Amino acid sequence: MRNQVKALVTSRKWEFCIIGIIVLNAVTLGLETSPAAMSEFGGFLMLVDRTILGIFVVELVLRLYAHGPKFFRDPWSVFDFLIVAISLMPATGNLSVLRSLRILRVLRLISVVPSLRRVIGGLIAALPGMGSIVVLMALVFYVFAVMATKLFGAAFPEWFGDLGASLYTLFQIMTLESWSMGIVRPVMEVYPLSWLFFVPFILCTAFTVLNLFIGIIVSAMQEEHDAEADANRQAIHDDTGLILEEVKALRAELRELKAEVGREQA
Amino acid sequence: MRNQVKALVTSRKWEFCIIGIIVLNAVTLGLETSPAAMSEFGGFLMLVDRTILGIFVVELVLRLYAHGPKFFRDPWSVFDFLIVAISLMPATGNLSVLRSLRILRVLRLISVVPSLRRVIGGLIAALPGMGSIVVLMALVFYVFAVMATKLFGAAFPEWFGDLGASLYTLFQIMTLESWSMGIVRPVMEVYPLSWLFFVPFILCTAFTVLNLFIGIIVSAMQEEHDAEADANRQAIHDDTGLILEEVKALRAELRELKAEVGREQA
Amino acid sequence: MRNQVKALVTSRKWEFCIIGIIVLNAVTLGLETSPAAMSEFGGFLMLVDRTILGIFVVELVLRLYAHGPKFFRDPWSVFDFLIVAISLMPATGNLSVLRSLRILRVLRLISVVPSLRRVIGGLIAALPGMGSIVVLMALVFYVFAVMATKLFGAAFPEWFGDLGASLYTLFQIMTLESWSMGIVRPVMEVYPLSWLFFVPFILCTAFTVLNLFIGIIVSAMQEEHDAEADANRQAIHDDTGLILEEVKALRAELRELKAEVGREQA
Amino acid sequence: MRNQVKALVTSRKWEFCIIGIIVLNAVTLGLETSPAAMSEFGGFLMLVDRTILGIFVVELVLRLYAHGPKFFRDPWSVFDFLIVAISLMPATGNLSVLRSLRILRVLRLISVVPSLRRVIGGLIAALPGMGSIVVLMALVFYVFAVMATKLFGAAFPEWFGDLGASLYTLFQIMTLESWSMGIVRPVMEVYPLSWLFFVPFILCTAFTVLNLFIGIIVSAMQEEHDAEADANRQAIHDDTGLILEEVKALRAELRELKAEVGREQA
Repeated sequence: MRNQVKALVTSRKWEFCIIGIIVLNAVTLGLETSPAAMSEFGGFLMLVDRTILGIFVVELVLRLYAHGPKFFRDPWSVFDFLIVAISLMPATGNLSVLRSLRILRVLRLISVVPSLRRVIGGLIAALPGMGSIVVLMALVFYVFAVMATKLFGAAFPEWFGDLGASLYTLFQIMTLESWSMGIVRPVMEVYPLSWLFFVPFILCTAFTVLNLFIGIIVSAMQEEHDAEADANRQAIHDDTGLILEEVKALRAELRELKAEVGREQA
Repeated sequence: MRNQVKALVTSRKWEFCIIGIIVLNAVTLGLETSPAAMSEFGGFLMLVDRTILGIFVVELVLRLYAHGPKFFRDPWSVFDFLIVAISLMPATGNLSVLRSLRILRVLRLISVVPSLRRVIGGLIAALPGMGSIVVLMALVFYVFAVMATKLFGAAFPEWFGDLGASLYTLFQIMTLESWSMGIVRPVMEVYPLSWLFFVPFILCTAFTVLNLFIGIIVSAMQEEHDAEADANRQAIHDDTGLILEEVKALRAELRELKAEVGREQA
Repeated sequence: MRNQVKALVTSRKWEFCIIGIIVLNAVTLGLETSPAAMSEFGGFLMLVDRTILGIFVVELVLRLYAHGPKFFRDPWSVFDFLIVAISLMPATGNLSVLRSLRILRVLRLISVVPSLRRVIGGLIAALPGMGSIVVLMALVFYVFAVMATKLFGAAFPEWFGDLGASLYTLFQIMTLESWSMGIVRPVMEVYPLSWLFFVPFILCTAFTVLNLFIGIIVSAMQEEHDAEADANRQAIHDDTGLILEEVKALRAELRELKAEVGREQA
Repeated sequence: MRNQVKALVTSRKWEFCIIGIIVLNAVTLGLETSPAAMSEFGGFLMLVDRTILGIFVVELVLRLYAHGPKFFRDPWSVFDFLIVAISLMPATGNLSVLRSLRILRVLRLISVVPSLRRVIGGLIAALPGMGSIVVLMALVFYVFAVMATKLFGAAFPEWFGDLGASLYTLFQIMTLESWSMGIVRPVMEVYPLSWLFFVPFILCTAFTVLNLFIGIIVSAMQEEHDAEADANRQAIHDDTGLILEEVKALRAELRELKAEVGREQA
């Protein structure tokens, strides 16, 4: 019976059903943001939402039953599990923010549609090669944030009051949003040399982001390339293989001839 | 007669005429935006505009006659047809905005000039490979917009009042325009932890756009490459082909020699 | 004597002298922006500036004499000629802006230093391949500017009052500077649907710039590649050439053997 | 004994110790930015900081002793030396800013962790090839800054009052931050044609940065490629080498046969 369930939950029909239900849920969750829709069909939308959550729970249970403990080895299954778990948590009191996280269920579309899963897989596969640059970036941010807090924290508590505020402001500066008119020019009115801090920071982060970027491009190209170069090499190897075979056959024939000539002489 | 018309509308002279007329129309439509020019030559400009529209209609009718129903199979012909159709619609009452769309006629330059047509063709050809990433981006936008509407809609109705407002504001944040000073800092004054929502959003969209971008670059390179690799392989194939021929000729001669030696022995 | 002058103006020593003079001129022109320096050494700085201009004129005359009419065939010589000519024009009345253009003389560094000349040459060489995309961009800008003037000109004369204002504002929007908080949100308060105009504009120009960018990268890579692929092919051609030679020698020897065997039989 | 010290300071255990100490120092220096933490453990944090500085000094002395004068030939050792030296300088009076520079010690992580050292090495290796473009950029900035100071300095002293202010403002414009709403539109109210100065500046710098960027990408790819092309060529060389050997052996056998036939005839 386990195999039957497994065949069911991995069938294409089942997949299409789940995709349909997720899209329907996306629509109802979208409608819930409209007060007009809520006042008219509020109860119905809630009912649909709960039904869909129920379907998701049933689906997860079936998959858990079908795959057994292997279920938790597939990261996408864990992803589905967590998203449904969030929806099941009681969203009361301080946790009312969890109600808004119900929309995350729509992200299950990624784990269901193979082409989206591949894209995300590709994005994640590009990350480890970038580890060193991310560590470097974190280091640059930390060093500059500590310095900014010490240097400008007293005069500009809103922007550089503590380490968190400084990190946020530096992130804003890295994205170049209002960095000069909004932040650095006011700071320069108090500390005229503060551009010596901010301009190098911008150049540092721009250069690091650039390298992150180039690293990802080059590694994407390289993969592409390696496949192609292998095909190329194989084609040439086939060509030369033909010649080698022919030459070897020639040599064998020559040997025969030599043997014949030898016999003749004898 | 149909063939004569076809020869006419596909001739280079005709093409140059149409280009000239489109450029002239671009100039008159540009002049129409100047009140000074309108008060002086208003009537003349209108006359020119109508005459040119008449020419375009005649040209379309000729092409329709020449190509018959095949006309609608060429996307560029459909493009021309739609642009002229827009100009012919009555631009009164609520549809007065259609008057401004007359300038779209200048876009016919794209369908007439082959090099522009190729560029647009290239842009469009790059799109399907990017389908998954565009769907992913739409998903990210939808999920974040629903969450933003639920979380911040009540406190900031102008920015996150409904799904449309949230989508627009998130698009603005994705382009990094005033995201911090204009939007997120004011929101953080009410919800201090809202950076946990916006900073991941920026990183997510930046990373997705980056991947879209890299995808387009890599596929552009790949095409370039494939052509080159084929030429390369062919050149080497020719080289090795010469050798193979020579070796085969050698083997034939060896066989002859062997036959001779055989005859001699006999 | 003409050859002597030619040898002089093309010698490395002369080149270094000119570089030194240009750098000195850059310094004096920089100092002229400082009121303190002007009040103290104003006369001296002016004297140095005029002397250097004199040297430049003499140098140009010498080069004109040395190269004759061929002088004007070299674009860099024409560049030098124009820059010195600008400095010689009377900078009075309405033309006082020309005084500020004297600093352009520092750009002569580009025409003198070979590595800078190569960089600029590379940049310019990349342009023609991009012609179609630049034309397309101009078209997009023109069409959107005419529409913006017609649609929003009456309500926002400062931003979209005439074609020039619209083109400038659209350029600003393309660079994403304050596009939403500064321009589109105020416009949307009057015309709520105007995002249907601006968001497509941003996507269109972003996509076109992206393609311009990719075009330049791909063509830069391609050049790189072609050189490398040629070297590669040549190396393989040499390898196969060696084999072909050997096989041909082998065939010649086989023929000799055959002849010998034939003689023997006779 | 020197060799023992050398073995110690280059051992992996030592490296891990130093990494641990640097991370600990990063934490204590981060905590120092929090007034709450300082009022509670201020004395302890200071003590830890001084102890760690002492350890760094001892480590440097050991490395100096172990490597002798060669120590200063390794740029990373010089980097460590400078960072520790900055921490040892008296941070009093005007130099109180040096206290904030103590956080730079955390950057020693770069010189200790090999993968970070490689990333930075890669970034620095990319610089020299970009020399010409950086010089060009400096030239463009200098020329435009001198012109801006002369043209707009009198009317906008805050932005273009002297060469330094102009350079800073032009840097801001290059990053596109508030360039239009913040700077150019106010300037255009006084000098309506000033867009003729700023728009070309933006296009110039954008194009130069683009080329810098492409230069780095292409050179990164090229390296990647050269390695691959060499491997490819070698593989083909091996293939053709096999054939050549076979053909040469064939020729030797043919000669033997010829000799035999010759003997027979004699």
